[in-house]
Amino acid sequence: MQRRTLIRNLSLGAAGVVLAAPAVQAQKKYRWRLATSWTPALDVLQGNAVRFAKVVDEMSEGRLKIQVYAAGELIPAFGVFDAVLQGTLQMFNAAAYYWAGKEPATQWFTAMPFGLNPRGMYAWYYQGGGLKLWEETYAAFDLIPRPAGTTGNQMGGWFKNKLESMADLQGLKFRIPGLGGKVYAEAGTTVVLTPGGEIFPALERGVIDGSEWVGPHDDMKLGLHNAASYYYYPGWHEPGTTGEFTFNRKAYEELPADLKAILDYAASYCSEQMLAEYEAKNVVALNTLRTRYQGQVEILPFPAEVMGNLRTLARDVLAEEANRSPMAKKVHESFTKFQAQISPWAEMTDGAYHRLVRG
Amino acid sequence: MQRRTLIRNLSLGAAGVVLAAPAVQAQKKYRWRLATSWTPALDVLQGNAVRFAKVVDEMSEGRLKIQVYAAGELIPAFGVFDAVLQGTLQMFNAAAYYWAGKEPATQWFTAMPFGLNPRGMYAWYYQGGGLKLWEETYAAFDLIPRPAGTTGNQMGGWFKNKLESMADLQGLKFRIPGLGGKVYAEAGTTVVLTPGGEIFPALERGVIDGSEWVGPHDDMKLGLHNAASYYYYPGWHEPGTTGEFTFNRKAYEELPADLKAILDYAASYCSEQMLAEYEAKNVVALNTLRTRYQGQVEILPFPAEVMGNLRTLARDVLAEEANRSPMAKKVHESFTKFQAQISPWAEMTDGAYHRLVRG
Repeated sequence: MQRRTLIRNLSLGAAGVVLAAPAVQAQKKYRWRLATSWTPALDVLQGNAVRFAKVVDEMSEGRLKIQVYAAGELIPAFGVFDAVLQGTLQMFNAAAYYWAGKEPATQWFTAMPFGLNPRGMYAWYYQGGGLKLWEETYAAFDLIPRPAGTTGNQMGGWFKNKLESMADLQGLKFRIPGLGGKVYAEAGTTVVLTPGGEIFPALERGVIDGSEWVGPHDDMKLGLHNAASYYYYPGWHEPGTTGEFTFNRKAYEELPADLKAILDYAASYCSEQMLAEYEAKNVVALNTLRTRYQGQVEILPFPAEVMGNLRTLARDVLAEEANRSPMAKKVHESFTKFQAQISPWAEMTDGAYHRLVRG
Repeated sequence: MQRRTLIRNLSLGAAGVVLAAPAVQAQKKYRWRLATSWTPALDVLQGNAVRFAKVVDEMSEGRLKIQVYAAGELIPAFGVFDAVLQGTLQMFNAAAYYWAGKEPATQWFTAMPFGLNPRGMYAWYYQGGGLKLWEETYAAFDLIPRPAGTTGNQMGGWFKNKLESMADLQGLKFRIPGLGGKVYAEAGTTVVLTPGGEIFPALERGVIDGSEWVGPHDDMKLGLHNAASYYYYPGWHEPGTTGEFTFNRKAYEELPADLKAILDYAASYCSEQMLAEYEAKNVVALNTLRTRYQGQVEILPFPAEVMGNLRTLARDVLAEEANRSPMAKKVHESFTKFQAQISPWAEMTDGAYHRLVRG
């Protein structure tokens, strides 16, 4: 065989390799970093970010590796939005209402006072246009959001003093984010926003008189039961709190289609798992509060008069907040319309379940 | 360059290709067939199977293609379990309580009368050992189950005649599967099991006096509102009905790890989407029943006396069914223990939401 012939034949072989190139290119590996707003003590929330990285790794056969950082390890709790916007990291895990200062509309994507429960929130995201509006809101920041999981209906929070009437809310210093915080502010409360990991020292030292966080499991992880005695329910301010996995648009768009799909569907898996985990762990924590902390902690419903007044205040506050930006107006209208529509059905099914089947 | 040297260099190139061989092997393509128990008119249920195939295709970059067949297209509605067990197909989509004749334990994996709602069911599967027990039950048939999505809390069903008391259940011919059917049987009802697609003709011709199926949207798709006038709620017999994606073990185990993961997590995505879709579509259907069919259709709660009596009967029936096999006993114990544990928490959160926040 002439050398020239050999080379020609080998070129044919090379052409075979070229044909296989798309497959080889699809095998390109990506390394991402994910920062959360959670202190590592919050095992369910931080664990959900770790779960996300794990299932993306599994489904992508290691082609997309995501390194997960807790609040403060790389970025402060409330610095993650800007870090991902600027491209320092490829994604974050937090709650949209932390970014109310950037765009008031973000608040509805996490929770609305007297709004939808977890089941209703997910119906709104996927069937009521909620996720499309969230994407539209974040497009201005070159970010792409995905619902990351719900905590379930939250607890109303911890108060150092017993709550008897609306007068007790005046002058109170209470830690609470989002639209619920604006309702308390309207009631005369001084509202502060503190990352989860910093609530206990603030509450213990009396910098604040109370705080909401999530529910029995998380709240005990933060030690709140050792800093306040009165634990109120229900979480009227956050009936269906949902977190976010949010991607830097450029990083997301660089991925091949299969990895984009894997990110999207992994978020759904995490949503499903997070609520199940909260259900199971909150049961245990509630039981501990009722037994081991009996006498130290009192678990109470909000007084009916307080709930009624807060509901009235909420209507005005929400209308006012909705007027703070064209996007907030659009999101508020979508949310409230969807809630009004599904309400009769929710009452006939899950409402009837709680009233009649389990009773 | 000597020819020998050239060849050696080219061998190095070839070695590079050999190194890439595992990646090439991972690109092996699989073609599966999925048969459902649903008539194509059931757009949400059949659509969920189609959605499953679509997202597996997306995430696997076409390496796992699943062809979806409705009931009767390839296999009759209730023949899918055996077809997949025998390896005729790789997977099916149905409801586990259809297989009560093979193993009584299967019934709990779909729904338990006066049992858990959708949120509770998923907590049980993933945090209460429910899915592990389901896998154990199906291992005897070389099948691997995954929760495929919930219909939400169901409606009680359609009755040709108004239900006033327990006496009206005696001698009634009613279509209902699972444990709920056994409770009706105990009340003197003649219970039949008919695939969804065959209910309307049976009801219209008077072969049966009533039937439950799912909820307003599905029931209207089947035309049940044109064959009976009284529509009862709540679905005490199925408070959290969940379907199944079930795989032939050999077919599943032949897949590489990433495709197995993709199947598992795709099922979670479908679960999330199916409930959201049912919520949105049931709202519309309920509204149609209340407006366009006003006068023709009456939507009523079960009489309190009937609900109370059925609850009492259910206790005995469930205990009896649990004694029909060692696996049923194990599953019933796990289910009822988990329900008792989460009950106080469910009441304080989602129960309080329905009572107080939305009220």
